[in-house]
Formats: sequence, structure tokens, C-alpha cells
Amino acid sequence: MDDLAKRLLEGDRRALARAISLVENGDPAAAGLVAAVYPHTGGAAVTGFTGPPGAGKSTLIAALVRRRREQGASVAVLAIDPSSPFSGGAVLGDRIRLAEHFLDGGVFIRSMAARGALGGLAEAALQTLLLMDASGRAEIELETVGVGQGEVDVAGHADTVVLVLVPGSGDSVQALKAGVMEIPDVIVVNKREHPLTDLFVREIRGVLALAPAQEGGWQIPVLTTEAASGDGIEDLEAAIAAHRAQLDSSGGLDERRRRNLREEVLALATANHRRELERRLEGDPSFAATIEEVAARRLDPASAARRLVG
Amino acid sequence: MDDLAKRLLEGDRRALARAISLVENGDPAAAGLVAAVYPHTGGAAVTGFTGPPGAGKSTLIAALVRRRREQGASVAVLAIDPSSPFSGGAVLGDRIRLAEHFLDGGVFIRSMAARGALGGLAEAALQTLLLMDASGRAEIELETVGVGQGEVDVAGHADTVVLVLVPGSGDSVQALKAGVMEIPDVIVVNKREHPLTDLFVREIRGVLALAPAQEGGWQIPVLTTEAASGDGIEDLEAAIAAHRAQLDSSGGLDERRRRNLREEVLALATANHRRELERRLEGDPSFAATIEEVAARRLDPASAARRLVG
Repeated sequence: MDDLAKRLLEGDRRALARAISLVENGDPAAAGLVAAVYPHTGGAAVTGFTGPPGAGKSTLIAALVRRRREQGASVAVLAIDPSSPFSGGAVLGDRIRLAEHFLDGGVFIRSMAARGALGGLAEAALQTLLLMDASGRAEIELETVGVGQGEVDVAGHADTVVLVLVPGSGDSVQALKAGVMEIPDVIVVNKREHPLTDLFVREIRGVLALAPAQEGGWQIPVLTTEAASGDGIEDLEAAIAAHRAQLDSSGGLDERRRRNLREEVLALATANHRRELERRLEGDPSFAATIEEVAARRLDPASAARRLVG
Repeated sequence: MDDLAKRLLEGDRRALARAISLVENGDPAAAGLVAAVYPHTGGAAVTGFTGPPGAGKSTLIAALVRRRREQGASVAVLAIDPSSPFSGGAVLGDRIRLAEHFLDGGVFIRSMAARGALGGLAEAALQTLLLMDASGRAEIELETVGVGQGEVDVAGHADTVVLVLVPGSGDSVQALKAGVMEIPDVIVVNKREHPLTDLFVREIRGVLALAPAQEGGWQIPVLTTEAASGDGIEDLEAAIAAHRAQLDSSGGLDERRRRNLREEVLALATANHRRELERRLEGDPSFAATIEEVAARRLDPASAARRLVG
């Protein structure tokens, strides 16, 4: 294990891949490994890409990674969007665009299927980010799906959150407007050439004009891209860098990371507890009998919950 | 308290309103009250309306309630959509359409603001459903927002789940297609007169054709309505009744409720635990110090989580 940690810290790709597999499979050795490398984390700039399925997040990340590689950055990609071509829902064109990165030693790509790690997906994803960070990747692109599944909403743990939309993402704009979706740091409208893009951008700007002021006076840029051709990617790269620079200069980065880490600790503690309860429900007949009493309307759910815990 | 429970079970509106306030305010007496009336629950048919903000869920519910009142049903409405006119984000026209119901003793309307009950919102909502059920309301319409906020996704605890969309709800259709949104029992496309409605309905049917078979062979109807004028509401009423009849005849209702109650018990136990942790974090300096160690990269989040719990 010490050897695996050592190789991981030296940036060995295979050690990183193996460490992530331990985390993903819930291997008992994973916890010790993450604990051992944790003091060496915090160096990576993590950008979270969120947005509805089909908005082109993966293609956008692929194009951004190409630019970042041209600048010599070492990059890791973690995809936990079940609809992503990184993680399984590929269309052929996307696979081809990604293929170049799969062969590039300077890019480490890992995907996690929602199905594989039910309940512990967010947990495994956050641990994986730490491993990628410890392995010396300067930049991590995190892809998550931002509609309807709170469980995988780990994009909020990134330093910079990019919301990717397309004309037709009416629901997301309504969700922003209603305050039920977190306001991101950067908004990208992908499919620049779409006839309704200009109108859609104006609609988003209108909604943002009503939003509360951002930390440090940050003005949320609304960019347009055409991910497949790479048009607009320089602007996206610049916007992410500008947000990062603002976080660095204002002290906002420390504050944001502290808040995220506090949330992560609480989420992990809560997930442990939930898993322990599920395990006891499976194995202990008196627990199953408690649920039967609830179903028979003899014991109310809150009293049953207290009985399970107490 | 015995007296409040007694009056609630007799269907007294003011007793119901008071009981819900106890639940919402986290009053210590609330738990005993819900426990006392729980054996008298299970009689109400609960329909959950979910979907993006702005799809017209509230107007649709108002129109449906009008129909159900004409049939003599006793109805309760619980809105936990922060963008809903029931719960605060009103536009004038909606308020006027709802006003008739506020004056009708046969309809009980209650809204919960997301802000008011942070963390415990889903919990308070589920408890409130039990109180409404115990008070003898035959039908409960539950309104939640179905985009981006897992916390308030309690519509899944209803007997029948109705997804309300509009042309332009592209994100929701993509989420259904990608399997990141639960498949509902009934889909309503509101704004029947919109020029793109027919196309949108065909798109939804195309996605549903790829979905796995539903319990009991249920075929998910895709209806169109114009909630503001009431057009199509009879079809919605009939579809909800048909789904309910199918659940009753197949034994699916018991199975679904057992699953929902098991989930509710686990969610309540987990929420209790989380709240306890938050409380200790606020009050205990050693807890706060643990978070500081994490922020300083000396203690990893998973070890910190174990320390908090253990």
C-alpha cells in the first residue's frame, strides 16, 4: 500500500488507475490510501462542468483538454454523468474526438457509472478527485449531470463551476430563475450556430441580472461555443482562468474549499450512517419487522426511524 | 395534544393547519401528534405533480381541484415548489385562479417554502401528507419542483406521479432519455395551443418507447392540457383515476407504499443523524477543530467523518 501511495504521488498513471479502482470498489484499503496522500492535495485546479444531458459537456471538455494540452498542462478528467460518452452513452463521433486523449499520457480519463456505485457515487467521486489531485495533475475537469439527480451533484465541490446549456435548455433557465438551481461561475451556451442562440443568451443574461451579487464582485460570463469545431474554446479557457485568478486574489478560494470540505465531511458521515442502516435492514429480522409495522400503519415512520437509530 | 389529534381526525381545518405548523416549526409535540394519528392514514390517494418551474403545475392543480370539487371530493393541496404561486412565487393571474379555492372549505391548501425548513423540508412535507391523510382528505395533490433539487423530490412518495412539461422542456426530455430522471406514471404537456406541442409530444413518445416496461404493464399516457382554460383536465382526471385503478387491482399500491415507507424511514433516520451532526458542529469546538484540520490538509475528509461519528 505504501508503495502504491508512493507511486501515485510520483504521478504514475497505473498507480492512479489502481487507486481509483480501490475507491470505486469500496475496498477497505482505499481509506488508508486516500488518508496517506491527502496532505499532498490542494494543488489541482478543479473545474466542474454541469448541465442537462445532451448539452455537449463531454465534447466541450475534450476540446478544452486539447487546448490545455497545447499549453502543456497535465490534466485529469472525471466523468460521472451517466449520459456522457466518457462514461458509457457514447455516440460514435464523440468517441472519435475523445480517442486522441485516451492515447495521450498527459491526460488521465476516468468515468464512473451511476449504476456501479449506487448511493456511494458522490462519495467515490470526491475521493477520486483527491487521488487525481495527489498524483500531481494540475487541472481536473469534472463532468456531472445537472438535472434531476441530487446524488451526483458534486460539481459544486469544484473551484470553478461551469454550467453548459443549449438553446432549448428552457428548464434549466427556469430553474435558475426560480432559484432552485445553484448559480454557476461561468455559463456556456453550446451550439453557437443554432438560430436561437442569441435569443437564448439574452434570456440567460436577463435572469442573471436579477441574481444576487457574486462573491468578490465576480460577473458571470455567458459564452457561446461550438464544441465540435472548437469555436469559442479560447474564450472558455480565459473565463475559467479569470475566475481562478479572482478566487486567488480575493482569498475566495480558501473560503470556498473550506465550505466544500466541511460539506464533504458531513456528506461522508451521513452516507456512512445510511449505509450502516441499509446493511442492518438487510441482515437483522427485527429491522425488517419494524418496516412491516410501518406498512401496517401500527408504527409511524418517524418513530420507526428513531427506533432504528436509538 | 389529544384534543388536537381528535379534532384533526374529525376533519377540523384549523386543527389540521395548527398540526402542520407544529411539524413545520419542528415543535417537539409534532412527533407525538403524527404518531397518534398515523393508524388512521392510508385512505387518501396522493398524486404528486413534478416538473420544471414555470411548466404550469399550480394552474393545472387548480383546474384539477375545480373538477374534483364538482365531483364532491374532499381535497388537500401541498405545494413545496419554491417557484409555485401556492408557495410564494405568484403571478397575479395564478393568484386569482387559486383564490376561489382558498375560500372553499372542501379544499385545504398549504405551502412550504424551501427556505423555511432547510434540510428538513422533505421530512416536514412527508409528515404533512400524513396529517392531511389522517384528517380525512380523500385526495391530496402534492406539488414539487423536479429539476436540480434532490432534496425536495418527494413527489416519488405519491401513489401516482404526474410529470408536467411544456414545449421547451428539452432538458427534462433529455434527462428522461438518459435515465437520470425517474419515469413518471402520467406525462402532461401543458400549453396545448403552442405550435410545437405536437412535435414535443412525439419526441416524448419516442423516448418512452425505449423505456423499460412499467409495473403491471401500465402504459404511460402523454396528455396535452391548457391549464389556464381547463382544456384537457378531464383527460388528466381520467388518467390519474385509471392509474389508481390499475394500482388497486394489481396489488401494486401496497408494494409501492411499502417501498416508499421504507425509504421514508431511512430518509428520516439519516436526516436526524445529519441534523445531530450539524448541531454538534455548531456547539462543540473539537468538531470545528476537526474541520480546520481537514482544511489544513492534515486530516482527510473520510477520516474526519469517521471521527465525527465514532
